[in-house]
Amino acid sequence: MSQLKAKFCAGLAVLALAGAAQAATPTPPKRAVGAAVQAPPLFAATLAKSKAFVDPQLRKTIDVPVPADAGGGYTHERHKDNYRLIYEAGMLYRQTGDKAYAELVRRVLLDYAKLYPSLPLHPKRANQVPGRLFWQVLNDSVWLVNSIQGYEAVMDAIPAADRATIEAGVFRPMAAFLSTGSPKTFDSIHNHGTWALAAVGMTGYAIGDQGLVKQALYGLDGSGKSGFYKQLEELFSPDGYYAEGPYYQRYALSPFLLLAQSIQRHDPSRKILDYRDGVLRKAVYATIQQSYGGLLFPINDAIKDKGLDTPELVHGVAVTYAATHDPALLSIVIQQGSVVLSPEGREVAAAVARGEAKPFPFASMELRDGAKGDKGALVILRSGPKAKDQALVFKATSQGMGHGHFDKLSWQFYDAGREVVTDYGAARFLNVEAKAGGRYLPENDSWAQQTVAHNTLVVDEKSQFGANTDTGEKHWPTILAFDAKDGVQMTAASIDDAWPGVRYRRAMALIDRPEVGRPIVLDLVRGEGGGRHRFDLPLHYEGQIVDSGLKFQGGTSELKPLGKADGYQHLWDRGRAPVKDGARVSWFNQGRFYDYVFASGDVDQVVLTELGADDPDYNLRNERAFILRGDDKDSFTLAGVLEPHGAYSAAEEYARDTISSVKAVERVSENGADLVFIRLNSGKSLAIGVAWDSDPAKRHQVKTPGGVYAWTGFSGLASLAQ
Amino acid sequence: MSQLKAKFCAGLAVLALAGAAQAATPTPPKRAVGAAVQAPPLFAATLAKSKAFVDPQLRKTIDVPVPADAGGGYTHERHKDNYRLIYEAGMLYRQTGDKAYAELVRRVLLDYAKLYPSLPLHPKRANQVPGRLFWQVLNDSVWLVNSIQGYEAVMDAIPAADRATIEAGVFRPMAAFLSTGSPKTFDSIHNHGTWALAAVGMTGYAIGDQGLVKQALYGLDGSGKSGFYKQLEELFSPDGYYAEGPYYQRYALSPFLLLAQSIQRHDPSRKILDYRDGVLRKAVYATIQQSYGGLLFPINDAIKDKGLDTPELVHGVAVTYAATHDPALLSIVIQQGSVVLSPEGREVAAAVARGEAKPFPFASMELRDGAKGDKGALVILRSGPKAKDQALVFKATSQGMGHGHFDKLSWQFYDAGREVVTDYGAARFLNVEAKAGGRYLPENDSWAQQTVAHNTLVVDEKSQFGANTDTGEKHWPTILAFDAKDGVQMTAASIDDAWPGVRYRRAMALIDRPEVGRPIVLDLVRGEGGGRHRFDLPLHYEGQIVDSGLKFQGGTSELKPLGKADGYQHLWDRGRAPVKDGARVSWFNQGRFYDYVFASGDVDQVVLTELGADDPDYNLRNERAFILRGDDKDSFTLAGVLEPHGAYSAAEEYARDTISSVKAVERVSENGADLVFIRLNSGKSLAIGVAWDSDPAKRHQVKTPGGVYAWTGFSGLASLAQ
Repeated sequence: MSQLKAKFCAGLAVLALAGAAQAATPTPPKRAVGAAVQAPPLFAATLAKSKAFVDPQLRKTIDVPVPADAGGGYTHERHKDNYRLIYEAGMLYRQTGDKAYAELVRRVLLDYAKLYPSLPLHPKRANQVPGRLFWQVLNDSVWLVNSIQGYEAVMDAIPAADRATIEAGVFRPMAAFLSTGSPKTFDSIHNHGTWALAAVGMTGYAIGDQGLVKQALYGLDGSGKSGFYKQLEELFSPDGYYAEGPYYQRYALSPFLLLAQSIQRHDPSRKILDYRDGVLRKAVYATIQQSYGGLLFPINDAIKDKGLDTPELVHGVAVTYAATHDPALLSIVIQQGSVVLSPEGREVAAAVARGEAKPFPFASMELRDGAKGDKGALVILRSGPKAKDQALVFKATSQGMGHGHFDKLSWQFYDAGREVVTDYGAARFLNVEAKAGGRYLPENDSWAQQTVAHNTLVVDEKSQFGANTDTGEKHWPTILAFDAKDGVQMTAASIDDAWPGVRYRRAMALIDRPEVGRPIVLDLVRGEGGGRHRFDLPLHYEGQIVDSGLKFQGGTSELKPLGKADGYQHLWDRGRAPVKDGARVSWFNQGRFYDYVFASGDVDQVVLTELGADDPDYNLRNERAFILRGDDKDSFTLAGVLEPHGAYSAAEEYARDTISSVKAVERVSENGADLVFIRLNSGKSLAIGVAWDSDPAKRHQVKTPGGVYAWTGFSGLASLAQ
Repeated sequence: MSQLKAKFCAGLAVLALAGAAQAATPTPPKRAVGAAVQAPPLFAATLAKSKAFVDPQLRKTIDVPVPADAGGGYTHERHKDNYRLIYEAGMLYRQTGDKAYAELVRRVLLDYAKLYPSLPLHPKRANQVPGRLFWQVLNDSVWLVNSIQGYEAVMDAIPAADRATIEAGVFRPMAAFLSTGSPKTFDSIHNHGTWALAAVGMTGYAIGDQGLVKQALYGLDGSGKSGFYKQLEELFSPDGYYAEGPYYQRYALSPFLLLAQSIQRHDPSRKILDYRDGVLRKAVYATIQQSYGGLLFPINDAIKDKGLDTPELVHGVAVTYAATHDPALLSIVIQQGSVVLSPEGREVAAAVARGEAKPFPFASMELRDGAKGDKGALVILRSGPKAKDQALVFKATSQGMGHGHFDKLSWQFYDAGREVVTDYGAARFLNVEAKAGGRYLPENDSWAQQTVAHNTLVVDEKSQFGANTDTGEKHWPTILAFDAKDGVQMTAASIDDAWPGVRYRRAMALIDRPEVGRPIVLDLVRGEGGGRHRFDLPLHYEGQIVDSGLKFQGGTSELKPLGKADGYQHLWDRGRAPVKDGARVSWFNQGRFYDYVFASGDVDQVVLTELGADDPDYNLRNERAFILRGDDKDSFTLAGVLEPHGAYSAAEEYARDTISSVKAVERVSENGADLVFIRLNSGKSLAIGVAWDSDPAKRHQVKTPGGVYAWTGFSGLASLAQ
């Protein structure tokens, strides 16, 4: 750790040195252009892009309008453009030494200094906490976070009198407005609070106001019951997981990292990046780990095309690299394809140009949820570290507040670079004005958050916790296993409070054994208690169903919704096939074949569904699922195996491995323990025992007609007891 | 042309020289490995891939089994692997000089010489013309085309006695079987015939049998009423278009190019590549032009993921480059990402490595159909030559035989690198055994070939020509216009025989004018005659409908099929909105917005559909369309404008140009001429006149409340007559 620290300080020293050198002898513009030309390619592209934005404005009058419009309107967009301009001009001054950039920052901020003191609360304030430049105070915080960085970068080139005017006219009153003026937001343990205290803290450091810094770090009352340290303790789990999931984690990271960077620069003795065992670094790594093929796992309310290339993570990776010099981060930079306009951005670009990148070690892991790590976990099982290796995501986390979905013990699966067992993400078309102004759609509540929209058990067609977020916040799963041995990566969890009286347990494994020769997924589901129920186990898939012997009826001449509420009203019933003791459902997608083979006396039928019913505004994508359904059962137990196989090239007209290896799945239970036989076409079998008992030393056995099988611990390869 | 010719001969001279040099002083293996290492990167990859396939078999016994199985079975696949082995071993011998490769070819062919003479017709023969090695004779032709190339490459390394045995045992009897033994196939003007005569002609050249060559070039009776020259005249249009469309053109090109290459090598005075004004070269270029983003236009029965990277085109481009040295072909090679294992493959790889590639000039063009160029045309309008520029495909071709669709005057549209106005292609999952053995699905007839599956007019819910291929073959559209001036690229066609008594005309334009600032599409449809009809104009789109003021009813609580036959039975009726005098339908897809704005008093409603009814085996993809429907009308006229706009980035959270420029479309008609006003939000207008009269000099005018507008020729920008 001390070695990491030393490297980090070295990186900052370079930055400080550059600033000092510039203050003493400003580089003449001519030579600066030369420096820009010699920039490493990724950074040169960033410089060029930024200059294309800033340079045309160098000699223009920049409008600083009286705030009037809500989001999307002119004054809103203009103030956004202005903070980008202030930030980028500041960074360009640092990189080129061209005083024209500093001059631009100076005159724009002087205009703000004239405007700001007289501003009342924004005229378009609605049900959000209002700002003064913007309709919601969050945007004011973002304005300050950006502008103070631009200002700090050019301070040495602005006359003292102007600095006084700017600080008195804008930065001090704005910091006051965001702190003591908006105490509820500022002291909240919430993302909006992080932005506010980042703005105030960074301003404090830049203009030398330790009072602002103290408020930011310890809260308005200085007690530490709120403020940055408290947020670092409360908002991330010990493993760096953020309760809302990776989509919001990516967004939330920005202000954390920016303030941390500022603290590190001005107050390095705080060792802020080591705080709480380096939780901020862990949060960056955890976000990257929660991705596949460059896209974030779309759990909870998530826009599915958000990935590692978002500006927040481009920034986050650069800042983290400056602290750790971990060459694996450089391969993420290459994937991102761009760097930020800062010394840290230049540093990663240079390291990439020197060919120092190493593959990022994507790995199986348990990311514990909750400030203390005791509220369940997100478990990721990977078949290998490469981009096209398989990944199984098992969601046994806490609710995740208002953006959380009712999807405890659901799973997602990735294979061959693509999503296979899918999650709908959020019902929202971000920034598409014609779709509810780009906001969350009604179908986000009525479909996307509901249990049936996920790959998990549904009892009596009801969502978990009655689809009530407050109830959901009070309960979370218990992790029963996270373990790897003998080619079997196993995880399991239980939750007892999702439906009254129902105990729901699930074990999932990613198995890579020589008997099969390719990775397969084991899925073991148990629901029991609370009377007789309808049990539905949906699996949402991408692709086209192929014949696997099931005889589907209906869904060809008329479609009706599958149900009336809890998401079922959105599913068309596309046909049903009767089932006894298990079956096989097969589909294929882009050259890969998928067989889900299951054993269960509790499944009466397989129902095929297609999304799109009760959707008058055509807001839903028409995605497909199949549901394993058991009616009027005391309990529901199922053992399933998903086998991905096959390679298919349309260009070269070949199809290989189109036959599955798994012939059948059988389950035998005794004393609450399950033994699953995976029977292969080769004649071989795999026997996996799951005891549902976390004692690692305990021996378990199950009697079968072929003999007694035994294993040790929660689960294991079972063998015939002698 | 003579310059091209000279270059082509030079290329061949190099090849001939290489062969001669090897015959005289075989390169020792050691040095050959060095040569392989120095191969240009693309070719080195091909060599490595081939060696990985061939080398492990060098010391193995290669099975040459008695034919027993149909397609997919062991003996079928083994004989396929064997011809690949013979071909690649031959090519590797040429490239490396390693005699082990020649020895492999020798012993495998000696085994075939033992087996072949005794073979009866294949035991699994079905309703195709049977072969002896394979269940259909087509595969026997392909076997010979490949094997003779491998043999020719190693002849100089095989003792004369073995050569005599091989030629007497395999090549002569097989050539006899494919020519005089299968006269119907051999003399047919059809793709299967091309493979047969390529096999026989190439064999004739290789073993020095001029009788076989003559049969291949002039048919069995030597009259020239069949044979290669006749096929070159009949199967391609003067523009190199192939009546079945680009998907089958790609496949058909292979034997044409292989035999041509053989003729060129042994008989250069025939100048075969100049024959019929260079029709074979034109066919290669025409195939490339019929692509977007690397994928072939999916007209007729086409697998949609087939593109420029198919082995046939990899080969075709290499052969054509050897003849033309056109550097634009090298950019296609780069896109293909691989080269063939032949001297021509090495040549393109070397040219690519030298950085000689130039962008391929994708362009607007009219590809006339029919041997004489008089059976309609496929018209391609492009907004520019780059990969993401827009492309409009207007299909006014002949039927295209059994794989043709009933889609006269339909269109497709590409924008931003993607398909926007879509064509279903074929209902077939190539090589997916679980889907009808990978063959065409029943839904290919019942849906994919039907008129409503395309973006063209449907009269009385009936497909064109009663969906009868023989009837369709007797009629084709008349091209009325193909022209570009004043930023308006215009094409138009008519067909009078698609439905009894109905005259159907359509004009389509790609307009890029400063008044709009971005390319838009004009669509002008006229259907008239034969009594009162229901007129349906479907538009199949990719994306999500957004609100554009239409009030859709229905399709939320129950779905019913839209009709009973001609493809309508497969469409779910997803809601209908009443319309008067026109409307706007808007959708978006991956960051781009599309507005189809139309003016028509003949459209009563807009019907939204989704594919998937009457599909008991889940064979159809769930694609979407909207249908502009007019009921009980004497005629149907419509002017529509498609405006693609907007840029949206989920990663960077911006949406730009989300508002369309086109405010409304108006149509005024007089004396059969149409004047379309495209009203813009800027207040400006565009007036486009379409006279439906091909006389380029004739002046036309239409009276409007705002004055008389006039233009000259079939169509033009119309201006107020003074």
